[in-house]
Amino acid sequence: MEERQISKAVIKRLPRYYRYLEELLNHGIERISSGELSSKMQVTASQIRQDLNNFGGFGQQGYGYNVKYLYDEIGKILGVDQTHPMIIIGGGNFGHALANYDFEKNGFVTKAIFDVRPELDQTFIRGIPVLMMDQLEDFITREPVEIAVLTLPKSQVAEVAQRLTRCGIKALWNFAHLDLDVPEDVVVENVHLVDSLMQLSYRISHSEEEQS
Amino acid sequence: MEERQISKAVIKRLPRYYRYLEELLNHGIERISSGELSSKMQVTASQIRQDLNNFGGFGQQGYGYNVKYLYDEIGKILGVDQTHPMIIIGGGNFGHALANYDFEKNGFVTKAIFDVRPELDQTFIRGIPVLMMDQLEDFITREPVEIAVLTLPKSQVAEVAQRLTRCGIKALWNFAHLDLDVPEDVVVENVHLVDSLMQLSYRISHSEEEQS
Repeated sequence: MEERQISKAVIKRLPRYYRYLEELLNHGIERISSGELSSKMQVTASQIRQDLNNFGGFGQQGYGYNVKYLYDEIGKILGVDQTHPMIIIGGGNFGHALANYDFEKNGFVTKAIFDVRPELDQTFIRGIPVLMMDQLEDFITREPVEIAVLTLPKSQVAEVAQRLTRCGIKALWNFAHLDLDVPEDVVVENVHLVDSLMQLSYRISHSEEEQS
Repeated sequence: MEERQISKAVIKRLPRYYRYLEELLNHGIERISSGELSSKMQVTASQIRQDLNNFGGFGQQGYGYNVKYLYDEIGKILGVDQTHPMIIIGGGNFGHALANYDFEKNGFVTKAIFDVRPELDQTFIRGIPVLMMDQLEDFITREPVEIAVLTLPKSQVAEVAQRLTRCGIKALWNFAHLDLDVPEDVVVENVHLVDSLMQLSYRISHSEEEQS
């Protein structure tokens, strides 16, 4: 398995390659050299060649990369060639915004949104049903759910994460501003918005250095 | 300036240190050893010592770290000891959710939300006025604005980013799923949600390897 050797840094860059290749496809472009991709993505051509070589000879000397082939292969590596059923926990503004997002284009299909407010019970967001938290375990037993999206208050997220992993959920997409303590076989991807803002403010105050 | 030598990887970890130190402060804990901090944060003690040594002798042999001092120093490095006035462009679900978020606790104060829908004109979200896009330049000239948050459709974001940078905005927090082409002196921090989901799905399909 060659894939095992791929560094985390490369994996982190794959979605970006995937996005640019999709754009090329949408523009009917069938092949591209590492040089052209480099100037589009503002990454060095040698970085691109190095990154993509990880996945075996996608590029051909004098031909460049076959856009569709590379797009499909990266899609397979990322697992977006498959459907990933999701549930969103928390029907507040954030859960609402995420439910309205077109993630299914990449295979991430939201099956239900869970909340505790009775007035939301059996309402729909973009056709997706809002259910009550006491139906959570029942729903997960009945329906295949792979990813749970956590958009609930910090004070409640630990307990809910426990309920989810107890039901066998193996993947959490966490928007709450804390690190979750979960069993080893559960993968967690955090979107820590405050951390991201702090990176921005760091870069603002150090932007002269950045340019030098 | 010692700070100039600090690696990006360390900078990326600072918000997490800041968050844990804040929690310790909230619990009235005045000092902590790298060992204790290590078990709390699930990072090795030697990594912690190495990271924090970047900022000069915060730790003292046999005493550990002074929580308040370290918290304040990291806050200064991150620039969160200062106020950062923001505007949110796009009053949809996402902009709405962000306007409701308590970012001002860390100095990020949202001054206005901009949208194009007339029915939103002069409404308020958590006391923050919603203004129309044609008032954008006028507002930025009148009020100090440091950060613009971009939560608008992909098709419109390039043009709006241009308008903003033309008015002198030097920091963009971008939620649109594309990379912005901005002048060199503008810093951009991206929150690419789809990329994050793809990282998650990659890790789901490779989770056996991850554990080994």
